[in-house]
Amino acid sequence: MDARVSGRATFDLGVWSAAHLQRVEQALERWVSADAATDAEGGAPAELIAAMRYAVLDGGKRLRPLLVLAAAQAAQSASGERSDATSTPEVALRAACAVELIHAYSLVHDDLPCMDNDVLRRGKATVHVKFGEASALLAGDALQAMAFELLTPDDDAIPDRQQAALCRLLARAAGSSGMAGGQAIDLASVGVALTERQLRQMHRLKTGALLQASVMMGAACGDVSSQAKDALMSYGAAIGLAFQVVDDMLDVTADSATLGKTAGKDADQDKPTFVSLLGLERAGVYAQELLAQALAALARSGLPETQALQGLAQRLVNRSC
Amino acid sequence: MDARVSGRATFDLGVWSAAHLQRVEQALERWVSADAATDAEGGAPAELIAAMRYAVLDGGKRLRPLLVLAAAQAAQSASGERSDATSTPEVALRAACAVELIHAYSLVHDDLPCMDNDVLRRGKATVHVKFGEASALLAGDALQAMAFELLTPDDDAIPDRQQAALCRLLARAAGSSGMAGGQAIDLASVGVALTERQLRQMHRLKTGALLQASVMMGAACGDVSSQAKDALMSYGAAIGLAFQVVDDMLDVTADSATLGKTAGKDADQDKPTFVSLLGLERAGVYAQELLAQALAALARSGLPETQALQGLAQRLVNRSC
Repeated sequence: MDARVSGRATFDLGVWSAAHLQRVEQALERWVSADAATDAEGGAPAELIAAMRYAVLDGGKRLRPLLVLAAAQAAQSASGERSDATSTPEVALRAACAVELIHAYSLVHDDLPCMDNDVLRRGKATVHVKFGEASALLAGDALQAMAFELLTPDDDAIPDRQQAALCRLLARAAGSSGMAGGQAIDLASVGVALTERQLRQMHRLKTGALLQASVMMGAACGDVSSQAKDALMSYGAAIGLAFQVVDDMLDVTADSATLGKTAGKDADQDKPTFVSLLGLERAGVYAQELLAQALAALARSGLPETQALQGLAQRLVNRSC
Repeated sequence: MDARVSGRATFDLGVWSAAHLQRVEQALERWVSADAATDAEGGAPAELIAAMRYAVLDGGKRLRPLLVLAAAQAAQSASGERSDATSTPEVALRAACAVELIHAYSLVHDDLPCMDNDVLRRGKATVHVKFGEASALLAGDALQAMAFELLTPDDDAIPDRQQAALCRLLARAAGSSGMAGGQAIDLASVGVALTERQLRQMHRLKTGALLQASVMMGAACGDVSSQAKDALMSYGAAIGLAFQVVDDMLDVTADSATLGKTAGKDADQDKPTFVSLLGLERAGVYAQELLAQALAALARSGLPETQALQGLAQRLVNRSC
């Protein structure tokens, strides 16, 4: 018996990630294309699709899609369904890619001159540098719409109940009381001294909401108890915050080449961060505390297969870029 | 018996519009608010909500919401449901407002300096002039997300089947093979000589897709035959194109004060229009032909109550601003 199939004791996050990443990349490649968007009378313009593909493909750690797929696997294990390395349900793959499109659009808009005015992203020229500002704006707008297109295929493959639930979770996480709201707070906070509570609130919206939604959208691909749902909510909240704490630490400790984006920008822009507030050492302790909270939440979820979620939390907190 | 209730012969578009407009305005006022977006831990930032409200409230002819409500009324009449002037189903009101949020966000982004760089909209300063570019960008992004939030309430008021169908229609109409795609073609067309076919294709996406989606989302609020659905598709396509032909004519014939936006911009920017292609007179004839197509489509729909849809088509083509 293959070690990957034989049981949870031998779970290998590297193997799991590689297999699932490949499926995500293939799905994004297929769905973010001129063909997919073309209808009978001729569809999306090639230039727009090119900017969208540039923003989405061949880059990114795909943390959010992997969280969706890991949570979907945990949720499906609750109902006795056993996923293996060779299949991923269509609904989970669509949810994974939809979240990534929202993340990608937010980066495109965030990099624009009127926002962070960044020219480097994942080691490449940002979308507006490559395609112009107007095209970057439209590509971001179209990516957000495409996320909801992915969640609502016009066939019977995904029950209406799941389509509606996934749109609901994603819309809330992306909007004014989620990611966009957090970015607005971020915008208003430059040069302002925030309390730790305010800083947590900003990041809970700006990055936490979409990370947590990734977990809950995965859960919505299965049928989990309310106890498990609550536990996954806690897990999502903890890793969402931990992600930002580590991000702030890396902005100080890593260089631009490692990060694939401009390092040291927070301090340059006089933005409040967990490092500026807590100092580097205490920020590191805080990140480990949040990791412990996330793992404890998984333990009380009652879900049989949470190894991928555990591994992703550990990787997220202990990452070096 | 009240004339409004007694039958179709006495239908009065002015009365119908006034009643339905009021409901749309009240619903937008209620839904685009800090309260609505606030959750237990504190939600959307006030500044972002202020920019979103500025973009949406107290302005606009609400053509798209009225199309949704008119089509919903026609669709419901097919199943023998009789709507009166005092009630509008929740699902239709949500669909109407969702479409308007997409329209409003598109205007905010369209007015940005990197796009049309317009300072006047509906006789008021544009959102970026009032709130700054970054806030305008985020407000537009958040409005798009909020549209999908409106369509996916977390209760049993709207069946999952309708929630999914409405999200599907709206996402396609807003995205790369709809509105955003049309704007990208528009962007690339400045100073380029388009054929009539290419011009139609551009506008079919840029403005037509969302107008047609308004009609089809209304239809999705009821249960219509495929014959009626096809007829409404044709109606939506015809008025979508007619809207743009008339828009191009008004850009030449009306002044900025009447339009509430800068007139004569198309010619200044050397953009291809139906007037530059056909001349003013033939453009007018074309608009009337499209109106006749729209009315013929309604006649073959088999739906009992299409008076509001008829009236809106006539108003749209014969408007002076």
